[in-house]
Amino acid sequence: MAGKARSSLLSALFLVLLFFGSSASPPRTLRARRPCKRLLFYFHDILYNGHNSKNATSAIVGSPAWGNLTKLAGQSHFGNVVVFDDPITMDNNLHSTPVGRAQGFYIYDKKDIFTAWLGFSFVFNSTEHNGSINFAGADPLMNKTRDISVVGGTGDFFMTRGVATLSTDAFEGEVYFRLFVDIKLYECW
Amino acid sequence: MAGKARSSLLSALFLVLLFFGSSASPPRTLRARRPCKRLLFYFHDILYNGHNSKNATSAIVGSPAWGNLTKLAGQSHFGNVVVFDDPITMDNNLHSTPVGRAQGFYIYDKKDIFTAWLGFSFVFNSTEHNGSINFAGADPLMNKTRDISVVGGTGDFFMTRGVATLSTDAFEGEVYFRLFVDIKLYECW
Amino acid sequence: MAGKARSSLLSALFLVLLFFGSSASPPRTLRARRPCKRLLFYFHDILYNGHNSKNATSAIVGSPAWGNLTKLAGQSHFGNVVVFDDPITMDNNLHSTPVGRAQGFYIYDKKDIFTAWLGFSFVFNSTEHNGSINFAGADPLMNKTRDISVVGGTGDFFMTRGVATLSTDAFEGEVYFRLFVDIKLYECW
Repeated sequence: MAGKARSSLLSALFLVLLFFGSSASPPRTLRARRPCKRLLFYFHDILYNGHNSKNATSAIVGSPAWGNLTKLAGQSHFGNVVVFDDPITMDNNLHSTPVGRAQGFYIYDKKDIFTAWLGFSFVFNSTEHNGSINFAGADPLMNKTRDISVVGGTGDFFMTRGVATLSTDAFEGEVYFRLFVDIKLYECW
Repeated sequence: MAGKARSSLLSALFLVLLFFGSSASPPRTLRARRPCKRLLFYFHDILYNGHNSKNATSAIVGSPAWGNLTKLAGQSHFGNVVVFDDPITMDNNLHSTPVGRAQGFYIYDKKDIFTAWLGFSFVFNSTEHNGSINFAGADPLMNKTRDISVVGGTGDFFMTRGVATLSTDAFEGEVYFRLFVDIKLYECW
Repeated sequence: MAGKARSSLLSALFLVLLFFGSSASPPRTLRARRPCKRLLFYFHDILYNGHNSKNATSAIVGSPAWGNLTKLAGQSHFGNVVVFDDPITMDNNLHSTPVGRAQGFYIYDKKDIFTAWLGFSFVFNSTEHNGSINFAGADPLMNKTRDISVVGGTGDFFMTRGVATLSTDAFEGEVYFRLFVDIKLYECW
């Protein structure tokens, strides 16, 4: 019996040591881990073009030497900086009641194809969600889906991190586009 | 005695297994956790207006079509991009010896109310603090307090994450404002 | 024997409790921990100056009132916003086959010395690397080396965090510079 106890003891110690050993390597290595929270939204961007100041939700605020502030520049809009305050909706209808605002900027950053860099927040202030989710990353917008980083959050999304998958749900010329955003949070405090 | 040993063994194993089980869910879920480090600062922003080049610590560098670079635009400054290099002080006195610099940009991003998006760093190079803290997030600046994310750090703040609470401590017209920043770091390496 | 077993048991329990105790403090506090992944790259920036539109990989898109869009402004380029899509190479040769693109922006943000704030991504789409690494932070570019934050990643770099050390490997006037980037990832999923 004492022999059995000893071998069980060794097993217990082995497990404990195994854990201590593994804790020396990075603590989160499980790439197949599922999101601790998942959120699906649409947001809608209407770019100011000199004639739609009432409806516009975004505006060109930086342009390269060959551009201007009322029309996206040539060369795949390279160098255009756009500031936005876009309504977030639960469905794909621009006229649905917004559940929050997508606020920040995007910069077109490639000459031979449409690609952008995004820095923005989802800002919520309702009974359902209160707080913000902060995003940053590259958006190669001709790809069907593209991933950016959730770099932090506040309020209900305190300290969160994750990945958001963007896809262009619709667009109309250079004035309107609608993105579908699949937010997968892998750190939830 | 051996029986008791065995039951203790089972308890030990149970605890070990309990841990392994819980480690499958996200590792940091304790929302009430207290900051591992907390820092309180003020920083001071003096916006260039065409007449104060000597004292100005920030400048408008992007504006919408309806704005210019020496005066913040109409519509709640929507679209103005401002670059800054602001002194950080321990108290609310602009003339106190700076302990570091707040460097980066803010973008006014809403037409009907004052709101901004911030990307900046606190840069320290003293005996007290050496390194940088990097911030990103939405700043609905009419709110008494608002939270942004600490997305990373270097040097003394290596790999840190957290939340910073901003509040406007004072402002004078469109030229000067002073922010109080309460930095709460929840990841300290 | 049973007494020995009991003392071993206590040791095992002690270890388990020790772990539970330590897990109440932030989980990653080992500042000496080595990177879980390390990557070394160069990237090359050729700034548009009005005469090099074919070769340029970046362009001034924001400037203070005293600047313009084809020449970096006085006062240490304070206020210039530059958008870039720079080739990433394995060696220091601009003409080597790019292994990815560095895409984003930098903002000169100090009047009396060259300093910038960076927001950008490394975007990879090859057999070797697929995905993106997102960076943010202050770049006091007169320092031999300077650290910025890796704030997230996607694809092969899913959820990563770390620190990247930049150094200026070469520059030619205001048109060309080459950075060496030593990326140290401390969180690898």
